[in-house]
Amino acid sequence: MKVISINAGSSSLKFQLFDMNDETVLASGLFERIGIEGSCYTIKYNDKKVKEEVEMKDHSDAVKILLDKLISLNIISSFEEIEAVGHRVVHGRDKYTESVLITDEVIEDIDTFKEFAPIHNPANLLGIKAFKEILPEVPMVAVFDTAFHQTIEEENFLYPVPYKWYTDYQVRKYGFHGTSHKFIAKTIEEKLGRKDLRIINCHLGQGASLAAIKDGKCVDTSMGFTPLTGVVMGTRSGDVDASIIPFIMEKEGKNVHEVIDDLNKKSGFLGISQHSSDSRDIEEGIAAGNRNCALAEEKFIRSVVNYIAQYYVLLGGCDVLTFTAGIGENSINSRLKIVSELASLGMKIDVEANNVRGEFRKISADDSKTEIYIVPTNEELMIARDTKTIVENNR
Amino acid sequence: MKVISINAGSSSLKFQLFDMNDETVLASGLFERIGIEGSCYTIKYNDKKVKEEVEMKDHSDAVKILLDKLISLNIISSFEEIEAVGHRVVHGRDKYTESVLITDEVIEDIDTFKEFAPIHNPANLLGIKAFKEILPEVPMVAVFDTAFHQTIEEENFLYPVPYKWYTDYQVRKYGFHGTSHKFIAKTIEEKLGRKDLRIINCHLGQGASLAAIKDGKCVDTSMGFTPLTGVVMGTRSGDVDASIIPFIMEKEGKNVHEVIDDLNKKSGFLGISQHSSDSRDIEEGIAAGNRNCALAEEKFIRSVVNYIAQYYVLLGGCDVLTFTAGIGENSINSRLKIVSELASLGMKIDVEANNVRGEFRKISADDSKTEIYIVPTNEELMIARDTKTIVENNR
Repeated sequence: MKVISINAGSSSLKFQLFDMNDETVLASGLFERIGIEGSCYTIKYNDKKVKEEVEMKDHSDAVKILLDKLISLNIISSFEEIEAVGHRVVHGRDKYTESVLITDEVIEDIDTFKEFAPIHNPANLLGIKAFKEILPEVPMVAVFDTAFHQTIEEENFLYPVPYKWYTDYQVRKYGFHGTSHKFIAKTIEEKLGRKDLRIINCHLGQGASLAAIKDGKCVDTSMGFTPLTGVVMGTRSGDVDASIIPFIMEKEGKNVHEVIDDLNKKSGFLGISQHSSDSRDIEEGIAAGNRNCALAEEKFIRSVVNYIAQYYVLLGGCDVLTFTAGIGENSINSRLKIVSELASLGMKIDVEANNVRGEFRKISADDSKTEIYIVPTNEELMIARDTKTIVENNR
Repeated sequence: MKVISINAGSSSLKFQLFDMNDETVLASGLFERIGIEGSCYTIKYNDKKVKEEVEMKDHSDAVKILLDKLISLNIISSFEEIEAVGHRVVHGRDKYTESVLITDEVIEDIDTFKEFAPIHNPANLLGIKAFKEILPEVPMVAVFDTAFHQTIEEENFLYPVPYKWYTDYQVRKYGFHGTSHKFIAKTIEEKLGRKDLRIINCHLGQGASLAAIKDGKCVDTSMGFTPLTGVVMGTRSGDVDASIIPFIMEKEGKNVHEVIDDLNKKSGFLGISQHSSDSRDIEEGIAAGNRNCALAEEKFIRSVVNYIAQYYVLLGGCDVLTFTAGIGENSINSRLKIVSELASLGMKIDVEANNVRGEFRKISADDSKTEIYIVPTNEELMIARDTKTIVENNR
């Protein structure tokens, strides 16, 4: 069974085509600047890479070109080989607790929920509608970033604000990166051959969130009503005192949206370091003696450690601590510093084992009370797996 | 040596007169509705209580009446017996790292720093100016709520926001309740006869904050740039996703100050329970089967536990956990539930010992890895102690 995983942005479309018999990637690629001057695509397959500039006025053009190229590059021999399409959708509010077959009602809901994800949901819909137009007979599945977190209980998802804000406006913790957190939890369950695990997963990339997972279910996560909160990120602040907003509005003559924008796009690593949003640049800055880079890293490490501490107590202990995503998989230094701060919880890293990037590996010392792993994430594969399961169950 | 401790509000003045030779309270009281129709005062002394309605057009009137009453009630025989006055001042920004003798410069600073405490600093100044007018020769000391937290290091007091907000506008974590946190730390040091302690102090009242204290110095605290953040409080939310602000502004047609006001005055226990801001009412509500009261309490307990977990790891372990202020001293139920959640850190309560209100007592079980105490706070005495020390050192 061949399945395409789609992640549509407002002017982009990322895809991976899987052969789900052995979960191999037959092709992957990116369509960029859709509807903008200079649109182009890149397709990788069989260790080859095609890159071409071509006019695409909308996502339907992109999908048409994608499908034609899959045939002309001999990746598939007919459209019928594609048995299902899985779409990443950012927000499913509290209605979608798992991935679902896309119907007209689902499409309407994704549109309705755009008030909670004003940039992403409409972009995700562009991808869905384009495939619906070009491949109307192929079943499609929506895989929500928020779904995995829907097992979080009210005491953990409620904010301590007027209760009406929840009942009337659905203001609550939703959490994001759910597809990645779920993938990591499933991978660890399989590798260790058991499901009764207390897992703390650190998804640390440009965006970053932690999840506390018990028996495969999410108990809490660090992102909230929006992806702004939680740990320090590339350009997002993570947790701050909300009173800073009116203070800065006054000081800089800004409106509330401009200050929220500063918190989303000019804060985090970039805000403190005044140097870069990329943790690799921050590490270079530290090596060059840049004090603000050191401060940015310290705050990042501390914020991650704070959430691990909270979740350790919330779960009543931790069997497995996992690191994933850009920083989690590749920053030897960050993992080392985070785990070093956790000695009082009995966690201990194996410095030699930790000296690796981007591969599944156990990195805890033998006498660590918690097993610690690097687990490369694969949201595209998780989307394809959910899509396969749901399409097969709905036949 | 007799010292008066003063806590001036915008239309109120609380005092305690101490004989610092044995730290006894000679008199205490409250002047209310100053400058408002129906102003009155209450003075307690020698197990007696005087309450009288009397016109007070400003804080100077209140101070004049206070001093006259101290003489007419035979509490002191002349003004000269009052050797010093200590004033609670909420905000000393990053300039005042400890209590100081009040000079013209200090008065100017308190006025300048009002942008960080727009209600409290001007009110505190009213008290200072009234005493300066009536008792111009008596030395006065300012005791700042923020001072104890000035040992917090940059990595912990910085927010992950544009660095300019710190350098140009002094946006950072300040922390509050410092006088109480300091009093508790000093009390525990004395009772245990050692200073090399890792203390987590839970100041839980209508306002609530935790402090992580190492070797007598504050390492971190849960309130931030303002008292809005940290744990769930009577009417303050504690930590929330700042993105909720523009969302509610839009939904309810409010401006940013109105939403911040909701977060300060209509959130916390009151917001979730829709019942009361008082933890005693919440406990009654739970007994009567009110589900929102139960949710409010669960969120409160969880928020306190989260900070204890963070500070446990930050301090590399915890020698002493202390509970103080209204809820901390009196809610048997809250202490029990908080400590029950901390089993994974080796903390264990002695249920019998915990069955007490408002007195100093060890409440940890013998096999608890951390000693746990109830320590009644006494900010007025802490103010008087600092005042005595500073006045004596400046003679």
